[in-house]
Order: sequence, then structure tokens, then C-alpha cells
Amino acid sequence: MSERKVDVAILGAGSAGLYAYPQVAHSGKSFVLIDGGELGTTCARIGCMPSKALIQVAEDFHRPASVAKRFGISGTEHLRIDIPHVLEYVRDTRDHFVDQVLTNTVDEMPPEQVIESNARFIEPTLLETEEGERIRADAVVIATGSRPIVPEAWQAFRDRIITTDDLFEQEDLPGSIAVIGLGVIGLEIGQALRNLGLDVVGIDQLETIGGITDPDVAKSAIHAIGQEFPLWLGHPAEVEPMADGRLRVTAGEHSIEVDKVFASLGRRPNVDGLGLEELGIELDERGVPRHNPHTMQIGDLPLFIAGDASTNRPVLHEAGDEGRIAGYNAAAGQVTEFERRIPLHITFSDPNIVRVGSAFNELDPQTTAIGEMRVAPVGRALIMGKKHGLIRVYGDKHTGRLLGCEMCAARGENLAHLVLLAIQNGMTVGELLQMPFYHPTMEEALQAALRGLYRQVETKNPGPITELRTR
Amino acid sequence: MSERKVDVAILGAGSAGLYAYPQVAHSGKSFVLIDGGELGTTCARIGCMPSKALIQVAEDFHRPASVAKRFGISGTEHLRIDIPHVLEYVRDTRDHFVDQVLTNTVDEMPPEQVIESNARFIEPTLLETEEGERIRADAVVIATGSRPIVPEAWQAFRDRIITTDDLFEQEDLPGSIAVIGLGVIGLEIGQALRNLGLDVVGIDQLETIGGITDPDVAKSAIHAIGQEFPLWLGHPAEVEPMADGRLRVTAGEHSIEVDKVFASLGRRPNVDGLGLEELGIELDERGVPRHNPHTMQIGDLPLFIAGDASTNRPVLHEAGDEGRIAGYNAAAGQVTEFERRIPLHITFSDPNIVRVGSAFNELDPQTTAIGEMRVAPVGRALIMGKKHGLIRVYGDKHTGRLLGCEMCAARGENLAHLVLLAIQNGMTVGELLQMPFYHPTMEEALQAALRGLYRQVETKNPGPITELRTR
Repeated sequence: MSERKVDVAILGAGSAGLYAYPQVAHSGKSFVLIDGGELGTTCARIGCMPSKALIQVAEDFHRPASVAKRFGISGTEHLRIDIPHVLEYVRDTRDHFVDQVLTNTVDEMPPEQVIESNARFIEPTLLETEEGERIRADAVVIATGSRPIVPEAWQAFRDRIITTDDLFEQEDLPGSIAVIGLGVIGLEIGQALRNLGLDVVGIDQLETIGGITDPDVAKSAIHAIGQEFPLWLGHPAEVEPMADGRLRVTAGEHSIEVDKVFASLGRRPNVDGLGLEELGIELDERGVPRHNPHTMQIGDLPLFIAGDASTNRPVLHEAGDEGRIAGYNAAAGQVTEFERRIPLHITFSDPNIVRVGSAFNELDPQTTAIGEMRVAPVGRALIMGKKHGLIRVYGDKHTGRLLGCEMCAARGENLAHLVLLAIQNGMTVGELLQMPFYHPTMEEALQAALRGLYRQVETKNPGPITELRTR
Repeated sequence: MSERKVDVAILGAGSAGLYAYPQVAHSGKSFVLIDGGELGTTCARIGCMPSKALIQVAEDFHRPASVAKRFGISGTEHLRIDIPHVLEYVRDTRDHFVDQVLTNTVDEMPPEQVIESNARFIEPTLLETEEGERIRADAVVIATGSRPIVPEAWQAFRDRIITTDDLFEQEDLPGSIAVIGLGVIGLEIGQALRNLGLDVVGIDQLETIGGITDPDVAKSAIHAIGQEFPLWLGHPAEVEPMADGRLRVTAGEHSIEVDKVFASLGRRPNVDGLGLEELGIELDERGVPRHNPHTMQIGDLPLFIAGDASTNRPVLHEAGDEGRIAGYNAAAGQVTEFERRIPLHITFSDPNIVRVGSAFNELDPQTTAIGEMRVAPVGRALIMGKKHGLIRVYGDKHTGRLLGCEMCAARGENLAHLVLLAIQNGMTVGELLQMPFYHPTMEEALQAALRGLYRQVETKNPGPITELRTR
């Protein structure tokens, strides 16, 4: 049997694999990129990009009616949306981003370096493709991504279940839909579908949404989004097919008939079928090999794992980091430990839901002070007509050092970056208050929360005026 | 003649005066607040707040038609805006903010501490009101604000000239308007009026708009906004009244007839009429007393100046700082020097125009490296349909330290705060690139500009992967 020899094999041409690739290529090592699925990354094909395109259209369609009366706009009852057009627009936009991803990566590689097939491990450094080609690699990067979870029991009516894999391929959308799972994806898509005019109900067995761990922020977010469509929280959903082709969805005391279910129950790492269980390495309960998140190395083998397959941090910039770390270490021959980024999670709902640094449930209540600000009275929020939300910032009670933040707020995605930079620089709340906050911006809402936090911490700024340094 | 004795007199109950007040009040000193105009601050009454309310309505009215075809929205031709309703809404919003400003300040003071009158100096520490009441104060804070400039020649047809003082008092708006002066106010209001459906032409004698000093950013902003309404740049405007009650506006080779002119030629400090010229202090060419911007003290007198009256930095947070510094020093009896904030200027146009830290024209081209990113290819910008703009970041060629930024870009107001915090913390471009940039946000546009800058600076991050720290 033919056996091809390379320095590095990269399994998967998604975001993580494509970030690993330049690290390997620049090292001068030989490599192959192996991917048996559709090229173009989860992010660009079915994730971040098409979802944001859909959200934007939905928001632009929904917005005029929501402000019309207050702002003196009439005629919004004549506005219509052409859903098939929207889906086609989203696909066009997606294709643009997929092209952008593939240009300068897969498209420029010599064909022999790209193997469009699935592969499995025979030995830690020996892979075999579906076509039986064997690749011997000094090191392997596993970047095989993830896929949406659809419970086994739902397979019987799979044609009525939509996941992110299917959503953007639809020609039209049904009239009613139950969104099951209200993490990032469920909330974003659920709100977008509702804004497009669908009857939406959102269901989650947790008592929170969007990964919020702070109960006050959760309450605020549930209140905000619960005004737009019903949220059934705290009970698992059961789905039954009906004779008329619809689905009955039941959760706790609630029950409803819908045309389709959008399943956003999380994503499963694509580590089954790789033959990992034959390699004698330790796997966790999801089948993911134990690895060091600072090196991405699996045990002390020349195997590295990155991106959604590692299940560490399923967001694009972290997949990129893991790909770079795995690629660098796979090519280097010796392993370097890298710092991981400060956690940052954004749900692009309206209001945005955001978590930065330490989450509320990771903090010690004894040593943590909390400052908060409701969005409602903030000038800019009022003007934008985005009055829902709450910002909570966490700091060390003694030193005043910023630790984290959870919020649901307009422009939360932007505020998140500011808080993150302050945490990364080890700033105290007092120091952060010494930056200017422009008027009238949403940053002023953060400023108010910071002022609340400052009042509670023991370490105060020197000088007679808190927010101004003396010369 | 009666002579009242206080420790501190604050001249002006605008933003600067109201920030000075708690500094004085908390010191335990006796004081009066003297204001002969309408209470409620320039910001809340005629500045930041009503303008932003108008901008938001105008944007929400304009937006659907601008995205309809691309997004599959129909019926936008039926949308109408009720301008008198809009103006009433803006006034209601303004009244809310004015109330917010006055609650906890003027409203809670004992009536004898508030003198609703204009006052002038008899001596540096002796003031006289219009009613002839004399106030002897150990120290005086001059926070008398500013007013729009209207050229003397236009007084003859003043009824056809609108300024920010008049705009929000209008019952309706004319069909056509020439906006003369394209700084912050002219651009914001001009674009809002255009979005509301007025025929707008914008005129400025400068070759730039919105205070941009970077020629490339200026070009991009002029291109973006010039697609919405004509911009006549580089020539002063001449205005002539017509027999039919309209105005002919001429600038260079251009000429047009309009119903009204919006005059946004800048603001004049309210320092005339205070009797400053009798005090034997040095005044600049605008009649503003020479003062130390770190203490706000005038010469070595117990006189302090703050806010628009000082003409230093006519933005709210700076007026607040000056008020606090002036108030603190007036009450303290001895003078403390404070650091001023890093400059931050935002025009809330679409795209936002922003200047942070050192402006382009303040930098030494020999020692400055520049990174730039066009907004057009940025994923989020594309999705938002906000493709115009350019971000330019400036850093020290040798050390990589961030110096400043000018941009016109969607979400520029938010990006500005992030860049500012990095500058305030003395960060290098390499260090800033070690924060995560979430996908897909406008922060990624900034990241791309920073990467361009990083390539040009001599000081590189240690470690094998630029954007990741080793452990």
C-alpha cells in the first residue's frame, strides 16, 4: 500500500486548520491538508457570517415599525419582506465570505497538498484516507471541527428539524418555529426569525439564556427578549410528530404546535470516526483527547488538537489561536506553551449579551465587589430606543482590580472589548475611570457601572478628584 | 448698595458650572450660582442630546429605503415622516434630559444660592448683577458657555438663518437648506436633515470636514457623505436674501437658492459683557482670559474659567473636567494642577468621524508609522451595509507606541474608546494586538489597521507568534 511521508498533516480545513497552515508553511516543513467535507469553515459557511447577515436583515425589517409611533414615521404597515430573497441574499453573502476564506489558503495550495477525503488514525503518526491512501506524518494537527447536535429520537422527523447546517439552504421559512436551546445560536437565530415575522417560541432547560451566569443579568435579558417572543425556561423540550406534518413541542406545562423545530442544542466535536480510541490515549466523556490548552498537545504525542474539535472555546478567535499554537508546535519539533486570551463571549442578540473575563459564577462573593447600571436611564440608550438591559462589572473588593463583566446592553459587543482591554492591562476600576467617556455614547452606561463598583472597593485613586490625575 | 459675601461664585449653570458646583459644595464653602439664561446646559438643551435624538429619527426613517432592494424589503415608498411630530419628539426628549440635569443640581439648591441674572465684574472678586446686587466672592468660576456665531452681515435676514439655538424650536422644517460650516454640528445636523428628506447642501471654506486632519481620512469621509448630499469645500459661503424670501448661497463656482441657511460656523465664548477687559488681565484674540489648562486659573488671580468659555476643548466631558478643576481649586484656596485627558473627538455622522490622541497634523512624519484599513472589505461592515470609511492609526516608528488615530467608520465612536484606552496605558501596537478581537465586529477593522501598523514599527513582540504571549 502506498505511504506518503510529510512533516505535518493537518486534519480539517476549517478555521483552526487554516490558522495552523501558515504556521506550518512558514516553518518550511512539508505538509498536507486533509478535509472530506465542504470547504469554507463553519464560521463563514453556516456560523458567524450568515447568521449575522440574517440578523441584520431581520433587524432592518423589524426596526421601522418598532419606532414608528414614537418617531412620527407612518406607512410601516406596507412594509413586506421577501423571505426567499432574504435567504438567497444570505447565501450570496456567505459565498462571498467563503471565497474570501479560501483565497490565499486552500485555493493557492498545490493540489497534491490538499486531500479532499476523510482520514482516520492507524497509528498516532499514520493516517489512512477513505480511498486507502496512507500518510505518515511526524506530527498531526486535529482540527476536524464540530456539528450540530440532533437527538437520536428526532431522527424520525429529521425533515422538520432545522439546524444551522440546513437553515441557510432553505428556499423559504415556515410560519411557526420552536427554537430549542437558547445559547448563542438559538437566541441569535430565534430573534432574527421573529423579526422576520415568524411565530417563534424559545425553549431551554436552563433558567438562563445566552450563557449568562449572573442571575440579575439573566433576568434582564430574559425580560428584554421575552417581550419579543415567549421563552419557556427550566424544562427540557419534548418533540412529537403530528399526523398533519407539524410538530408538537412540550416543555414543562407549556405545549405548542409548530411547523418546524430549530435545534440549537450545542455542537458535537467531530472526533468520532477518527480512530482515536485505538491510539491508547485518554479521551474525555465527549471522546476528545486530553490535551494541554497552552500547547494543544495530546499527552506527549506529536498530536495536537485545535478549534471546535478541542471543545475548549468554540469561538472564532480562539479557534484561530488554537490552530496557530497547534500548527506552530506541530512544525517546531519542540513544544512551546502560550498564554490563552482573556475570555470573551458575545451573543449578537438585541440587546447584545456579553461575558468578559471571569464570569459571575467563577468569582468568590467574599472578595468580589459588583457595580451595576441599568441601561434604561442612559441617554444614548433612550435616544436609540434600546432601553432594555443591565451591565454588571466585577472587581476585587480590596485592590479594585477589574475581574470581569456580564451584561445585556445595546453596543455590548463594543463595550466588551473596552472592558477586556482594561482587564488585560491589570487595571483597577479607578484607573479605568480616568479615561474619558464621550457623551452621549453607550460607554457612559459602562462608566456608571464602574462608578458604582468604585464606591465599593477599598483602594481609591490618589488625589482630590477621583477621575482626574494630579500632575 | 447691598453687598453679599460668599466664598465662591459660579458664573453660569451650564455643564461646566454644574460640575464645579459639587466640588465647591462638598468643600463646605458658601457659594452662589449665577445664570441669567435658560437653565439646562447647552448639551441637554440645544447640543449633544437633541441633536442625537434628531439624528436617530432621521437614520431610522432613511435606513429602510437604503437597504430595501438588497435585503428584499418592499413598501418603503409608503414611508412618510411627520416633521412637526419629529420636532416635538425631539423637544420632549430634550425636556427629559434638561429635567435630569436640573434635578440634583439647581432644583435642590436653596433659592438664595441661585441668582437668575447676568453678572459682570466690578473687581476680580466683586460681581454685580443686572439688578444691581453685588456679590463679593473669595474666588469666582467663569463658566458662561458659548453661543453660535452668526456673521454680522446675516443679521438682516436673521429670520432665515437657523442655528442650534433655533433648530429644535421650529414647528416645521423648510424644503431646502444650506448648511454652512461642516464641523461636528454642521455634519451631524446636515446629514440628519438630509435623511429626513430635505434638500441639503453642505459648505465649508476648508478642504476637510468634521475636524479631520488626515488627508486620506478626509477624502474617505468626503466621499462617503458627498454621496448623500453635495459638499462644496474650499470656498467661503456668501449669502444674499432674495426678493421671494429665499436665500441665494454662493461658494466658489457653486450657487444655489435655498429656503434657509443652517449656520454652523462655530461658537463664540460668552466672555463679552463680563467686564473682563476692565480687570487688567491678559485676554486672547477672542477675549478669553489667559489661563492654565491644568488649574483653570487666570493668571495668579482667584479667578478660574471652565467649559466652552475657556475655548480649550468644547466637548462635554472636557467641560466637566474643567468645571471640576475650577470648582476644586476655587474652593481649595490653593491651586492643584491636574492632568488633562487624552483628546477624543467624535462626530456622530454616518460613518462616525473620530480623532483620538495625537491628530495626524500634530505628528512628526519622520518618526511616525501609519497603519490603515479600509472599511469596505470588513465582514461586519459589509453585513451592516456600511461600507464607507477608512481607519488610520499612528504609532512611533521605533518603539511601536500608539500615538493617535483618525477614522471615519461605522461604530467609530466605540472604536475610539478602545484606541484611547490603549494610548492612555502607553501600549505598543504589538501589545494591543494581543487582545482578542471578536468576530464579526467592527473592532476587526481596527485590528487590521493595527496589523498594518505593526508591520512597519521596529519593536516587535517577543515570542514566535506575534499575537500570542508565551507562558
